[in-house]
Amino acid sequence: MRCDTIWTNAHLVTMAGKGPDADALGRIENGLIAARDGVIVYAGPAAAAPALEADATVDCQGRWITPGLIDAHTHLVFAGNRSDEWEARLAGATYQDIARAGGGIMATVRATRGASVDDLVRAALPRLDALLAQGVTCVEIKSGYGLTLEAERAMLLAARQLGQVRPVRIVTTFLGAHALPPEWAGNADGYIAQLADDWLPTLAADGLVDAVDAFCEGIAFSPAQVDRLFRAARALGLPVRLHAEQLSNLGGAALAASHGALCADHLEHLDQAGIAAMAQAGTVAVLLPGAFYFMRETIKPPIAALRAAGVPMAIATDCNPGTSPLTALLLAMNMGATLFGLTVDECLAGATVHAARALGLAGTLGQLVPGQRADLAIWNIARPADLVHGMGAAPLHARIWSGK
Amino acid sequence: MRCDTIWTNAHLVTMAGKGPDADALGRIENGLIAARDGVIVYAGPAAAAPALEADATVDCQGRWITPGLIDAHTHLVFAGNRSDEWEARLAGATYQDIARAGGGIMATVRATRGASVDDLVRAALPRLDALLAQGVTCVEIKSGYGLTLEAERAMLLAARQLGQVRPVRIVTTFLGAHALPPEWAGNADGYIAQLADDWLPTLAADGLVDAVDAFCEGIAFSPAQVDRLFRAARALGLPVRLHAEQLSNLGGAALAASHGALCADHLEHLDQAGIAAMAQAGTVAVLLPGAFYFMRETIKPPIAALRAAGVPMAIATDCNPGTSPLTALLLAMNMGATLFGLTVDECLAGATVHAARALGLAGTLGQLVPGQRADLAIWNIARPADLVHGMGAAPLHARIWSGK
Ligand SMILES: [Zn+2]
Ligand SMILES: [Zn+2]
Repeated sequence: MRCDTIWTNAHLVTMAGKGPDADALGRIENGLIAARDGVIVYAGPAAAAPALEADATVDCQGRWITPGLIDAHTHLVFAGNRSDEWEARLAGATYQDIARAGGGIMATVRATRGASVDDLVRAALPRLDALLAQGVTCVEIKSGYGLTLEAERAMLLAARQLGQVRPVRIVTTFLGAHALPPEWAGNADGYIAQLADDWLPTLAADGLVDAVDAFCEGIAFSPAQVDRLFRAARALGLPVRLHAEQLSNLGGAALAASHGALCADHLEHLDQAGIAAMAQAGTVAVLLPGAFYFMRETIKPPIAALRAAGVPMAIATDCNPGTSPLTALLLAMNMGATLFGLTVDECLAGATVHAARALGLAGTLGQLVPGQRADLAIWNIARPADLVHGMGAAPLHARIWSGK
Repeated sequence: MRCDTIWTNAHLVTMAGKGPDADALGRIENGLIAARDGVIVYAGPAAAAPALEADATVDCQGRWITPGLIDAHTHLVFAGNRSDEWEARLAGATYQDIARAGGGIMATVRATRGASVDDLVRAALPRLDALLAQGVTCVEIKSGYGLTLEAERAMLLAARQLGQVRPVRIVTTFLGAHALPPEWAGNADGYIAQLADDWLPTLAADGLVDAVDAFCEGIAFSPAQVDRLFRAARALGLPVRLHAEQLSNLGGAALAASHGALCADHLEHLDQAGIAAMAQAGTVAVLLPGAFYFMRETIKPPIAALRAAGVPMAIATDCNPGTSPLTALLLAMNMGATLFGLTVDECLAGATVHAARALGLAGTLGQLVPGQRADLAIWNIARPADLVHGMGAAPLHARIWSGK
């Protein structure tokens, strides 16, 4: 078989374990991967590989290869920085003090509205580079700090540009329903109608929207408002996902599942009805332990019940300036294990195969199998558990995106 | 004034704030640092600098400079890796299962005893490099996984060698009293006597010991045993420090203070008597939030009482394979704020001026003032709080050690 590159002398974590002898990680020792045109054409035991003619051969010297990691929930594009209000809170200021001083999410909205697309790209690049340095090859990025049509467009354009200036796949999500902008105070229904009838169709027509998200919460939007928006998204053929059950249980996850949502995210207050609805719809639970940690939450997502119901669990950074200034997906995985009690296998699946599914990319990314993208992370580790166990280590040896 | 290098166009965090207008960080905007022979000769406002003739001038382009960070408590030198037992625990194995399978600290002892000095250096280098990449210029490293004279010597030699192969100051601590080795089972008093009368004087005579530490805990050594060891240390003119009050309150901190200890470390179960003794002796409280986080502890050190008593607080990684596989001092600082409620200023002092004091290096390291070592960290940040706020960011622009 002709191919562009083969990676030899490697151990593989295929995330495609099958059969009685395979573990959940689909571990293959003494493995080999071959890619052509950016796509995996073989991934398996070296001894079972077909005859391969390759332009380049990379000796991995016994290292481990996983699928490139996938960060399935970020707010990576924003302007400004809210370390100042966090510093004030640690020193005793209350949330009311912060709000009076113009802080909170609206501080990020003001800064983002004042930024050009180039400004937004420049501000986001160090955050993106930190993710890539940990083997990430696909990042979801949401709008939601613009909250005007033009500022939301600028955020989505910046997200797309990030995928031009770095070798990474960017998935964009329209999150106009992140917070009610001051211009619409007292008229959340009107704002949602504007999103559904005007902004979303406009931005979707420009090819800027891969999925539609909303923040369903007492301090944000109601289930009825989310439903209105999701109907519009589905009419446009766009998949939906939801910030649900983070601070209270409004039944958002079940609502999302009723729309066939790709995923519901946060889920600390998810109940059994929501779990059942997600399981039936095949909706992924995206866990965001960085926000749980940073906000000093105490109620954890119902991991055991999600596990029992067979709901796939993804783990993401939720990178954002207010509640999760986290740009390390490996650390999010460690938090998933340490704070939420996930197993190592669940953490690895959460940043690969289940993350791909949360982005509607199941079968395309997240596993080392023929036909999927040749997005690889090659690691200096003794065993896969090291990726989840270490905190602050830099175990990446090389990152391959689309076969390169 | 003649000097080797000046750093211009920088904002300084001197950690030497004085006077009614200065904050605790001793912030100086538009500052300048000059160094000669590895020592700071000027650090202050550019406008107030003396006439300087320098061989080299570095334009910092408005970046922030802090003292090089100091990690005052690590077990960085060890062989092996215990991610396997952690993985098993997450999957449901009990501590008893792990112990039966030969896990726990004795797994690290076996691996370390089987390693050469070169092996130990090679194993520790990625961990050290991860610290250096976050602006660390001084690292304390303990023995304590050898538990024979020769294996303890090998660990201390490896620690010293790390200071030869990387531009970093290494401070060594003899922690023979870390755990009772199997050879001495049932005879902890005999083991302590051997440490005090033989191993410690031998290793100290070889110049391998900068300080003496012990683990004072029900599962380790009693206050009386620690007292015996500390008397020997002090007779040799060596400073002492103690792992105290981590899992229970044995009065270890007060005992340490009675020996004029540099610091007492962990301190989750510290009581008011211990705090008072530490305050009176000038003993630093070294907080290790990484171990608190990783071991899912719930009892926090008495931060408010330590603060009220004026006990200086340092923050360190406690990098070790069992209870804190953490190689990111900035993340330890974030955990100090997020988990323990320290302020940003306390976190920054904890990794600079107070950490230096915990190592007996007050006045030598940890502040940007004339006469101290020119160990600097130059950062790509908007404000000092960013160092504590971000999780996983890589804000270091450059690291200067001994003026270079
Ligand atoms: Zn979010
Ligand atoms: Zn320790």
